[in-house]
Amino acid sequence: MSYLDMSYDELKAQKTQVQKQYEDLKSEGLKLDMSRGKPGANQLDLSVGVVDSVSSKDVLKSGGLDLRNYGGLDGIAECKKLMADIMEVDPSKVIIYGNSSLNIMYDTVSRSVTHGVMGSVPWSKLDKVKFLCPVPGYDRHFAITEFFGIEMINIPMNDDGPDMDMVEELVASDESIKGIWCVPKYSNPTGISYSDEVVKRMASLKCAAKDFRIFWDNAYCVHHLYEDKQDKILNIIDECEKAGNPDMVYMFASTSKITLPGGGVAAMAASEANLEFIKKQMTIQTIGHDKINQLRHVKFLGGLDGVKAHMEKQAQMLRPKFKAVEDALEQELGGLGIGEWTKPRGGYFISFNTLEGCAKRVVELCREAGVIMTGAGATYPYGKDPKDSNIRIAPTLPSPQELTEACKVFVTSVKLASLEKLLAQ
Amino acid sequence: MSYLDMSYDELKAQKTQVQKQYEDLKSEGLKLDMSRGKPGANQLDLSVGVVDSVSSKDVLKSGGLDLRNYGGLDGIAECKKLMADIMEVDPSKVIIYGNSSLNIMYDTVSRSVTHGVMGSVPWSKLDKVKFLCPVPGYDRHFAITEFFGIEMINIPMNDDGPDMDMVEELVASDESIKGIWCVPKYSNPTGISYSDEVVKRMASLKCAAKDFRIFWDNAYCVHHLYEDKQDKILNIIDECEKAGNPDMVYMFASTSKITLPGGGVAAMAASEANLEFIKKQMTIQTIGHDKINQLRHVKFLGGLDGVKAHMEKQAQMLRPKFKAVEDALEQELGGLGIGEWTKPRGGYFISFNTLEGCAKRVVELCREAGVIMTGAGATYPYGKDPKDSNIRIAPTLPSPQELTEACKVFVTSVKLASLEKLLAQ
Repeated sequence: MSYLDMSYDELKAQKTQVQKQYEDLKSEGLKLDMSRGKPGANQLDLSVGVVDSVSSKDVLKSGGLDLRNYGGLDGIAECKKLMADIMEVDPSKVIIYGNSSLNIMYDTVSRSVTHGVMGSVPWSKLDKVKFLCPVPGYDRHFAITEFFGIEMINIPMNDDGPDMDMVEELVASDESIKGIWCVPKYSNPTGISYSDEVVKRMASLKCAAKDFRIFWDNAYCVHHLYEDKQDKILNIIDECEKAGNPDMVYMFASTSKITLPGGGVAAMAASEANLEFIKKQMTIQTIGHDKINQLRHVKFLGGLDGVKAHMEKQAQMLRPKFKAVEDALEQELGGLGIGEWTKPRGGYFISFNTLEGCAKRVVELCREAGVIMTGAGATYPYGKDPKDSNIRIAPTLPSPQELTEACKVFVTSVKLASLEKLLAQ
Repeated sequence: MSYLDMSYDELKAQKTQVQKQYEDLKSEGLKLDMSRGKPGANQLDLSVGVVDSVSSKDVLKSGGLDLRNYGGLDGIAECKKLMADIMEVDPSKVIIYGNSSLNIMYDTVSRSVTHGVMGSVPWSKLDKVKFLCPVPGYDRHFAITEFFGIEMINIPMNDDGPDMDMVEELVASDESIKGIWCVPKYSNPTGISYSDEVVKRMASLKCAAKDFRIFWDNAYCVHHLYEDKQDKILNIIDECEKAGNPDMVYMFASTSKITLPGGGVAAMAASEANLEFIKKQMTIQTIGHDKINQLRHVKFLGGLDGVKAHMEKQAQMLRPKFKAVEDALEQELGGLGIGEWTKPRGGYFISFNTLEGCAKRVVELCREAGVIMTGAGATYPYGKDPKDSNIRIAPTLPSPQELTEACKVFVTSVKLASLEKLLAQ
């Protein structure tokens, strides 16, 4: 029976029961973490061979370049090919960076602030700079724009991507809007992928700001959960070219959740004109990134087919975890009317919406019972979820057994917070 | 006989002879490079074992941290200890970054531009920002400050460091002076090391700008050429503390010229207050650098004694190269009055001064004869050597045989350019 159909007395009785369950769980002294999108230890066991993939006995060259010495500003050709295949772009459009796409995104915003975008006025010289932020979204994106004092505007996420009517209207009229954060495939946290129509409309945007850029964080481009149900998105770089906006997009990706987070390689893809401008900065900033680690990834993954096979092995490890969460949510909360959640086909997250005004309380109750969730509000700019309802669930790090325990705490906390709210009305 | 004592006719006769030698060398079709401070292949052979020093079978943990996963923002403890020992500071003052200290320096200037320094006004909001640049100095330092539109002021370098009278006077009165670039040990390019007095005066600077920082690029801290003749400099961080300026300095170092350039680790050391401010940015910028590569360096180098032994092996490879250049310069140019050069005890460069107005011409003549030198002027801000006389010689990359060839071209070019100048007077 849905909580929403219960009488006051029924709710009170229910609360007494749920409160008891919650106290019992709390007394177990759990210490579990469903807060961050980290690979599990079994995934890392699978990937750790990348460490051994290059030995000092190997030929450490790429063309005429000695990989042991300085040089190779934008990456070795073999690694450009690998990342280009993963990102579904031409290698000529790719720059290989260090170990983190987050760092590339930070750097991209920072450069725009200090040096503008392909000749535009540096954003630091403007009174106001704004970014569009589809919500719920990725907290670390929002942290970058907040750090640079960029005003963030919430854009509602639909099942097929951001509300494009709103995006089109805003960018057309407001020259201070300089960018939009997108996780187009298996979005963080909702898990949805942008429809062809959304990608095409994104690529065709008519922007008041000539230096408007789409920050296309293709973090989960090969991160499917199922062999037979895979989302496929249109290539934004191709679509931007077709739409006459070849320079309007930066695409980012990394191997962080393919091999080892922190020990991987990251890449950016963009138009030739963008890359030319960016390389002017790179030549000042570095003599080149870690070319030997680039070679390690080429050798370990061995091309796109190798990547796909490797990711399917990881999917086998992740499916039971997502299933454990989805089953627990369905069994314990199905029909109660107090929560909705996504069932993604890939990526690292499940997105959960509580009744309005309950998310913070749920996370608090979880924490008090020993289960760390991503902070309520984290999926919104400035940490402010206007409805206080979205919670990001990250099922990848704990074991399935731990997940089952953690989910018990979570669903009980959702019930308790919802009952508190309903009884207070 | 010194050229300066020759009659016009003697100079003419000399020129005919030197011109002939130059044309003969040119006809050999050489292709040699003395332009960049890159390790030679034999040094890389010595260091390439770092690639094998960690295997997937090893325990890839540091304390409770799984080195294969996200985390470890400011570096693993073992690597902090290693870099702290190399930099002669306490590990608590160290942050480990990615593969390049140049990148840390870029990032440090960039952050100051966008976010100020420990609460100061962001430099982008100021009308004017200036840096002091001891000259001749490192071109890539100057490139960073130029890229950010920071005005650079030349400070003459003496045998014991920068002209401190000038430095003291300038920083005391001009609040727009925010930094000074220093390579305090085996300086790039002169090879000199700062005297204790210079370090103490530097640490005691009374600056008009509260956000003035010494950018102390300790690039060659363990890069001695001789076991028995080693420069030792005072620790600037200790001296700044003693002088009541604990926050006034950032120290930078990397393993680029200890193990493999591009495949190494880089570090920064500074006061607790500086690190606290910097980490606020780091948490936005990255989840952490490559911890496995940090472990590789700890295992391969095995502590400070290991570093010293490793660097002495490299010194054995570098000494004949420096000697080949110094011998050629002495034999061919000694007593001619047309050039002066340094005889460093460490580092990667020899600094050569031609007669005024000859450096560009020498580099041009070398290039036409197949020998690439660092561009004349590169050792000065904006690439402008006011006397057009300094040339940086980088003897480390070519083999001793190649160096001998290259030096023939160089000394002949110096003679020819000098004769052209003297005959034109």
